[in-house]
Amino acid sequence: MIIGGGFGGLYAAKALKRAPVDVTLIDRHNYHLFQPLMYQVATGSLSPGEIAAPLRGILSRQKNTRVLLGEVVDIDPAGHRVALADGASFGFDYLIVASGSQSSYYGHDGWSEWAPSLKTVEEATNLRHKILYAFEAAERTNDPDQRSQWLTFVIVGAGATGVEVAGALAEIARQTLKNDFRSINSNDARIILADGAPRILPSLPEDLALKASQELRELGVEIRTGLLVTSIGREGLTAKTGEHNEDIAARTIIWAGGVGATGLGKRIAEVAHTDISRTGRIKVNPDLTLPGFPDIYLIGDLAGASRPDGSPLPGVAQVAMQQGGYAANVIVRRVKGKEPPPPFHYFDKGDLAVIGRGNAVANVFGIHLWGLPAWIIWASIHLMYLVQFQNRLVVFVHWAFQYLTFSRGARLITGPFKLPRL
Amino acid sequence: MIIGGGFGGLYAAKALKRAPVDVTLIDRHNYHLFQPLMYQVATGSLSPGEIAAPLRGILSRQKNTRVLLGEVVDIDPAGHRVALADGASFGFDYLIVASGSQSSYYGHDGWSEWAPSLKTVEEATNLRHKILYAFEAAERTNDPDQRSQWLTFVIVGAGATGVEVAGALAEIARQTLKNDFRSINSNDARIILADGAPRILPSLPEDLALKASQELRELGVEIRTGLLVTSIGREGLTAKTGEHNEDIAARTIIWAGGVGATGLGKRIAEVAHTDISRTGRIKVNPDLTLPGFPDIYLIGDLAGASRPDGSPLPGVAQVAMQQGGYAANVIVRRVKGKEPPPPFHYFDKGDLAVIGRGNAVANVFGIHLWGLPAWIIWASIHLMYLVQFQNRLVVFVHWAFQYLTFSRGARLITGPFKLPRL
Repeated sequence: MIIGGGFGGLYAAKALKRAPVDVTLIDRHNYHLFQPLMYQVATGSLSPGEIAAPLRGILSRQKNTRVLLGEVVDIDPAGHRVALADGASFGFDYLIVASGSQSSYYGHDGWSEWAPSLKTVEEATNLRHKILYAFEAAERTNDPDQRSQWLTFVIVGAGATGVEVAGALAEIARQTLKNDFRSINSNDARIILADGAPRILPSLPEDLALKASQELRELGVEIRTGLLVTSIGREGLTAKTGEHNEDIAARTIIWAGGVGATGLGKRIAEVAHTDISRTGRIKVNPDLTLPGFPDIYLIGDLAGASRPDGSPLPGVAQVAMQQGGYAANVIVRRVKGKEPPPPFHYFDKGDLAVIGRGNAVANVFGIHLWGLPAWIIWASIHLMYLVQFQNRLVVFVHWAFQYLTFSRGARLITGPFKLPRL
Repeated sequence: MIIGGGFGGLYAAKALKRAPVDVTLIDRHNYHLFQPLMYQVATGSLSPGEIAAPLRGILSRQKNTRVLLGEVVDIDPAGHRVALADGASFGFDYLIVASGSQSSYYGHDGWSEWAPSLKTVEEATNLRHKILYAFEAAERTNDPDQRSQWLTFVIVGAGATGVEVAGALAEIARQTLKNDFRSINSNDARIILADGAPRILPSLPEDLALKASQELRELGVEIRTGLLVTSIGREGLTAKTGEHNEDIAARTIIWAGGVGATGLGKRIAEVAHTDISRTGRIKVNPDLTLPGFPDIYLIGDLAGASRPDGSPLPGVAQVAMQQGGYAANVIVRRVKGKEPPPPFHYFDKGDLAVIGRGNAVANVFGIHLWGLPAWIIWASIHLMYLVQFQNRLVVFVHWAFQYLTFSRGARLITGPFKLPRL
């Protein structure tokens, strides 16, 4: 049994394709989501349907695998059963938990109302509505203070996601919307990328982070490192820089801050009598099993695995995919009565972040790239991955089209989002 | 001032492009929606972003026109002002009201909870979630009665929309999903197209309706004409055929029943001291003005205009577009001090309905076509229209891809839809 159809869970399921086992994959959603392109949903470039594929469709020809839609809320590790929110329960011989993490506001859950994150499809579409609506509201108001508040966008968190959102927002304001308004100049939009850390992109080498900062500044993004957010509300945020307090008036604040434990993660830590970290990780054995429960594997964002030097593995797709394949392999060897493989080892291919049209930074096997070459690598990797889910052609056409025209196809304000009063 | 950015309002705005006037287009949504493809959103073929285009983007280069996001709730015809839900108000010299209609349950508003319609993007995505979830629920349950309830789909209303949804649902069950499930055979799905009228597709000639019925039956759709729905609930509907009452157990009921007045329509009838029909239409003068108010034009679904023989004009895009162009032309002539043009005359090019892949029926200038030729005409007309909004390439690739693979790209269950307990 596999819980979660993200990168880790899906790769575990695929690795079990020819194994003599019956696989059940349970997910709360009926789709696998290509998280690295979520910022494009949030900024109106792509529709959710273009970065997601139905799990059933992906696994339809894998005859030993069934997919169930349901939310696992409890695990009985000794009894080898999982319980779903709707009351059903299922037994397992081996369990791979790949249920991931969720956005965390580090104890300030009230901030989520004013600073949505972009971890789920619902959050990303909500954010898209908020961003587009801000320009509409600025166009409607006649009060210059109100207008500048609506035209100020703050992205909190300068990791890859924060950088990508900031770059995309800058392009929207400077290019996509430049002819769309009559009362405002979308070019006046102020885009602030804020982080408490001393520099952006901590997962990339310093020279590439510097390069990315320069490029973002050229796009008109204000970078505010060393800025610690202390409160977020309807009309802006308060932050600390060293000894000083500072207020930033902004009606659109985007949370790219960090991740924490899910309900299921906390429950697993509880029943296994172990701890879960602030970022939602549970320490695992070198073979990724939950200590004390050799039939339960934790992978991806949930797994507190480390490099040989003791540093934690990053919460990225690469790690989850490799761990999914590893856990599946261990199980197959156990089922077949073979020797266990050596402990899990993460093969780090590098890291990258996209800044804008034809512009990215990349660290590939230690080689530092930027500009168009880095962007081509970024685009190739993403397309190669999407190829497996059959919608690469659509995404490719969309991208090519946007690249040539600066247009953005998915600029709709829909759904349950409530328009604030002007 | 133009209220509404649908087919009528948008065409009126475009017709005023070179006129010596200042145009304001107000809409509740920030996008123009290509309604005729909504059934493809509801059935998971296309994402909302692929059949909608931002109004600002469409009109960005039309310098005499500004777009406002807002909901008009009141009109003061004598004072020449409109009032918005957010408290703002705007004056006008000439007003074109193109605010359309909304789904109507003919006095049974409670039915909407169990039988969503597909008039708005929100309704169509909600319906998509409901349809996809029904298959998931059928896969999860072990009770054969429950299972057949989840696998029964009833479409109420056999106009073009009802026929299109029925055909698309049949294709999903017979083709798209055929390898996706383990406990159920999606082919077992029962699809019922019901209508109180004696035949389907009343807007098309009888021989084409007969042809469409045959094709739908071949796809496995049960056609139940002369079936009058008397109640709709959580687990099915009750209907009357002649003297008999009949219960149909079904967890998915789709309302393709009809349209009625919007709140704004009712308000206009009130302030103009005139009547609004059951289908939401207000009688207009031959030049489309509201009787007694020569500066206010009603077009599209809101306008109670008739053919010379007295029969009402249908609520289709063609009528709205021609009326939008006409009203704009009258206004331009009045502004320029020219003679008024002759009364509005609807130039009827025909009508069509699509049944499935490469299969449609069409009445084009009185020529009756069916099968692939009709489908090619259908696809060309739709692509030609979408061309104007720059996303035709994406939609075209999507269609071509689906046509070749039977896949459906937008099969996601997202958003505020609450999963019912199994």
